[in-house]
Amino acid sequence: MQHALPSPRILLGPGPSTVSPRVLEATGRAPIGYLDPELFEQLDLIRGNLRILFGTANPFTIPLTGTGMAGMECCLSNLIEPGDRVVIGVNGFFGARMVEIARRLHAEVTQVDAEWGRPLEPEMFAGALRSGPRAKLVACVHAETSTGVETPIGPIGDLAHAHGALFLADTVTSLGGLPVDLDRSNVDVAYSATQKCVGAPPGLSPITVSDRALATVPSRVQPVTSWYYDWSLLRGYYDPPHGYHHTVPVNLYFGLGTALEEILKEGLDERYARHRTVSAQLVEGLLELGIEPLVAPESRLPTLTTVHIPPTVTDEAAVRRRLLIEYGIEIGGGLGPLKGRIWRIGTMGTAATSRNVVLLVAALRHILV
Amino acid sequence: MQHALPSPRILLGPGPSTVSPRVLEATGRAPIGYLDPELFEQLDLIRGNLRILFGTANPFTIPLTGTGMAGMECCLSNLIEPGDRVVIGVNGFFGARMVEIARRLHAEVTQVDAEWGRPLEPEMFAGALRSGPRAKLVACVHAETSTGVETPIGPIGDLAHAHGALFLADTVTSLGGLPVDLDRSNVDVAYSATQKCVGAPPGLSPITVSDRALATVPSRVQPVTSWYYDWSLLRGYYDPPHGYHHTVPVNLYFGLGTALEEILKEGLDERYARHRTVSAQLVEGLLELGIEPLVAPESRLPTLTTVHIPPTVTDEAAVRRRLLIEYGIEIGGGLGPLKGRIWRIGTMGTAATSRNVVLLVAALRHILV
Repeated sequence: MQHALPSPRILLGPGPSTVSPRVLEATGRAPIGYLDPELFEQLDLIRGNLRILFGTANPFTIPLTGTGMAGMECCLSNLIEPGDRVVIGVNGFFGARMVEIARRLHAEVTQVDAEWGRPLEPEMFAGALRSGPRAKLVACVHAETSTGVETPIGPIGDLAHAHGALFLADTVTSLGGLPVDLDRSNVDVAYSATQKCVGAPPGLSPITVSDRALATVPSRVQPVTSWYYDWSLLRGYYDPPHGYHHTVPVNLYFGLGTALEEILKEGLDERYARHRTVSAQLVEGLLELGIEPLVAPESRLPTLTTVHIPPTVTDEAAVRRRLLIEYGIEIGGGLGPLKGRIWRIGTMGTAATSRNVVLLVAALRHILV
Repeated sequence: MQHALPSPRILLGPGPSTVSPRVLEATGRAPIGYLDPELFEQLDLIRGNLRILFGTANPFTIPLTGTGMAGMECCLSNLIEPGDRVVIGVNGFFGARMVEIARRLHAEVTQVDAEWGRPLEPEMFAGALRSGPRAKLVACVHAETSTGVETPIGPIGDLAHAHGALFLADTVTSLGGLPVDLDRSNVDVAYSATQKCVGAPPGLSPITVSDRALATVPSRVQPVTSWYYDWSLLRGYYDPPHGYHHTVPVNLYFGLGTALEEILKEGLDERYARHRTVSAQLVEGLLELGIEPLVAPESRLPTLTTVHIPPTVTDEAAVRRRLLIEYGIEIGGGLGPLKGRIWRIGTMGTAATSRNVVLLVAALRHILV
């Protein structure tokens, strides 16, 4: 039995988002070897452009092999040793995942909770940092993909550093769609993903690590449990003299490189403004259908809008299925306690256009009204 | 600065190997969502075709997100708990990597050594299994990418099972190029890679796990340290009802699906015969240049040929550089103790053609003679 060609989709879910024709063309180029000098020329451009996007001067900034969750696991695995105290903010599904991974690494986790749908506040971290033994790491999600909430990370980074802790931020749903400004926000370590606001296919997790965070690794008592994601070993490949570590996914590099070029050609400020404009149009269109946002205006992400499912809808999955099958439009359902209660609508990267908003609102009107 | 287009390469190194135009076209298709019903139709075909290629009926057979080394780490991480006794055969670089990863997982490792360039013998394992506490796992590399040696795995699998141990085989450089026949060889767990004899871009690691091996996971005292590569969690995505785990690299699935179709269209027996024929032509051509194989004929891989660097060559890296820059042909250097002593020449998947052998031998003749 032969594979059918995939149907054309307008991807307005939580990712992957739509990929531009130029990026797709680059992704399908004939591969070159993982030690080919041309590959390192491409990698140097990618690493430089990722630094611009992250707002950092960190030399160790790479497109990690794996998806955003690989980035989360990689960063926590290098930073945490058994018994380390870690303070993690949880206001959604992905903060909770950080806690799960940190526990598997045998960290002493102090969980700082905020309501799902509200941002984390610096005061919550201040309380946790003032009591108990010194924390090695403070971590939180900048843009919660499960709730559509932005947490301002700068004040949390200041607090972490004031208490001698490293600061880690998840920028999976922000990088490329809104400013992250890591160095200005005292972020030591961040990870992201390529298939959301960066506009490339899934499979890579851009990560960046400050020299200060890297310096903690050699003093570990035990090596990082993960050989595949050990920063020290990865640096041996990404930095000269480029020794073999694993066979990197060069086709995904081709796509990412082109996506980053498209971003810089558009301009960061212009790109962030486009995301704000389009998400405002989306909220307006949904309100006209009687669909209410979950999140207060000041905390809403410009990249992912979450809305209450209208009370007239008895089978929300059926609505999403009709959108997908009849209109070719994907939106996302809720995760965890928000499952069946909200929809998640991404306007990310290439997919963040007024046209897509008009099409989605029209299709929803046909289905719901 | 803009990315240059990658130069056309004939990839005769240890991987990635050349990818066919149809597979490249599929890799560059517009992505669909990770919960799209069409994605699971594609995945079901991929998983079925991987079972045919692996020679197994294991239901849990998936294209893991990550490269071959991710497959190695994933399988060992699920099988090993701290203190478990593990017997690992080492006759090359990748056997040694298994030992390194097993040690990071706090296994009690018994290392069974053979000379690099020679196969592992069942007797070596028998000795290790007869003495000491019961081993939970026996592991070895079927096709050593560092030396070009095939180890017959069937007798080792029999021994492992006779001693109540699970058996793990690395099939990175064999899957798709020579028979692996896992079920017939008593292999419980195997991992591979897509960028060698399977003919797809790098970034996925096909893995397969027997029910017997899966059954050991629920009785673990501690959860698998890696959340990203925990089989129990991965099954929740790959099997119905398909819950979210991570955003799988759908473009790589498109490419792999098409590559597997090409393999089955060619026919497994025909494909294995092609690899044997082409590698024999390669050895013949190299012998005419006075270049001698490292491995005895009965243990030579049909997918990767290793040769002694001729004594007249004083700078082997310069020869490889000229092949790459002047002729667009990539071959590999040695790893570990064989660095600077051998070349590794892959004739894998789409790249395994008589034409490529003729071109490589002609180019080498121009450079060396």
